[in-house]
Formats: sequence, C-alpha cells, structure tokens
Amino acid sequence: MKQPPFSTAQETENAFYDALEKADLEAMMTVWAEDDEIVCVHPGGMRLTGVEQVREAWRQIFNGGAVLRIKLRQLQTIDGKTLTVHSVYEQISIDGGTEQPPPMIATNIYQHADNGWRMVVHHASPAPSRLETESRRGKLLH
Amino acid sequence: MKQPPFSTAQETENAFYDALEKADLEAMMTVWAEDDEIVCVHPGGMRLTGVEQVREAWRQIFNGGAVLRIKLRQLQTIDGKTLTVHSVYEQISIDGGTEQPPPMIATNIYQHADNGWRMVVHHASPAPSRLETESRRGKLLH
Repeated sequence: MKQPPFSTAQETENAFYDALEKADLEAMMTVWAEDDEIVCVHPGGMRLTGVEQVREAWRQIFNGGAVLRIKLRQLQTIDGKTLTVHSVYEQISIDGGTEQPPPMIATNIYQHADNGWRMVVHHASPAPSRLETESRRGKLLH
Repeated sequence: MKQPPFSTAQETENAFYDALEKADLEAMMTVWAEDDEIVCVHPGGMRLTGVEQVREAWRQIFNGGAVLRIKLRQLQTIDGKTLTVHSVYEQISIDGGTEQPPPMIATNIYQHADNGWRMVVHHASPAPSRLETESRRGKLLH
C-alpha cells in the first residue's frame, strides 16, 4: 500500500479505497489531512468534522468486520491549484454477501500542502436504483 | 438578487440559495460555471454532469411549483486558491406544507475564473433523523 506523502490526488484516492477495502484504520487516517476542517459524510449518516470524529466513525465501520470490494467508475475531476475534486460512482460489495447494495455517489476532495495531497472531504450518498429513478420523475423536490 | 460576476464564493452561495427559494431557473444557471465538468447530485438522485443535465433537472424541480424556504446552519469552509468548499446543513421547508423534511447535508464547491466565482459542484443528501441515527449505531457499513 502506498504510504504518504502522496504526490498526486489520484495516489491519495487510491490509498483511500485501499484502506477502505482492507479495513485498515491507520492507513485510512494517513490519507486524511490532520485538520479540524475535514468533513466526512457516510451514506445516510450525519456530517462528521475534524480528525477525532472522522477517525471514530471509521473505527466503528471497520470493527463491523465486513470485507469490502469496491469498483469505481465514471470518475470526473475538477482541478484547482491546491484543491482537487473527484466525483465517482462506488460499487461496493461485501465479501461473502449475496446482497448487491446500490452504487454510491462520492464527492472526494483532496488538498495539497507541504506534506503532499491529503483528503479533506468525503461525501457519499446512495444513487437510486433504476426503478427509483423512474418513480421519482416529476416528484423532484430538491 | 445579486447578479454575476460574484466576487466571493459566499456571494455565489447566497445567489444559489436565493435562486432555489425563488425557483428562478435563469438566476440558478448564472450561478453555475458554464462547463462540462460541473456536477450536481440532488438528494437521492443520480449524478448530473454538464450544463445541459444540470439545467434540465432544475427546470423539472422548479416546474414542481413548490415554494421553498431554506435555512442554512453549521457552515464549514475549506479555502483553496481557485476552489472553495462549503459544507452546510440545509433546513428546507415548503411554503404551506405541514411536513418538515429532514435536513440535507450539502457539499458546495465554487471555482474562481475570469468571470468571478461560480458553482461547480452541489452534492446534497438527507441527514438522518435522531431516531435513525440511534438505530444505525453498530450497523455502519460505509
């Protein structure tokens, strides 16, 4: 697994999903900026801010013991000078599980600092299934 | 309503929520960068990319006719040189409605270009109610 410093946002993203698949809390936390401003929103969860809250939620998730397989698709990037945005669909499956959860849409934001690129925002939420998409037509609120 | 060019990301954000409350499609689209890279995720919706998809979704939403009142709280910002991130809770209520929808968590990203600050990402998803939060403890997946 690539260790910091990460020289590109993509390296940081690779390390993030590696740590997630391996349920490796220490590796996960090396991906994040050590900053009070970091923001993490797990699907359906509250907003978590700062290293302590973000770490505690990952600890709980990884303690759940599920081994995840994650496929990413449709990466879209917006590059700034010190911030880079990756928008991506995550197809997450659970090793040994029969259920196929819906894909997640993730907005991942990376910041460049003296110690390379680090994650500062992860906001993930479930994408609708095709059926849900059909039934929502005309009922969009916001 | 403030017109572009917007000289700060906050001005752009104010114009975004003004346009949303007023269901003003033209004002809404002046907020967004005119770019294929823009990304919009409405709560529970698919990811929309590019001006055409983003505009069409707002058109459908505004055609629904609901007049919204939006209160923002707990703004958290991450400033880059050309990109700025605003993470915020949106409390949306419908004029004349009795239902109080759950708050939304929004990640809004603004980009600075020659024509001022424009929105490039809006990713909104529902926050859990307190009851949901309790029942999810120990069941976090990701």
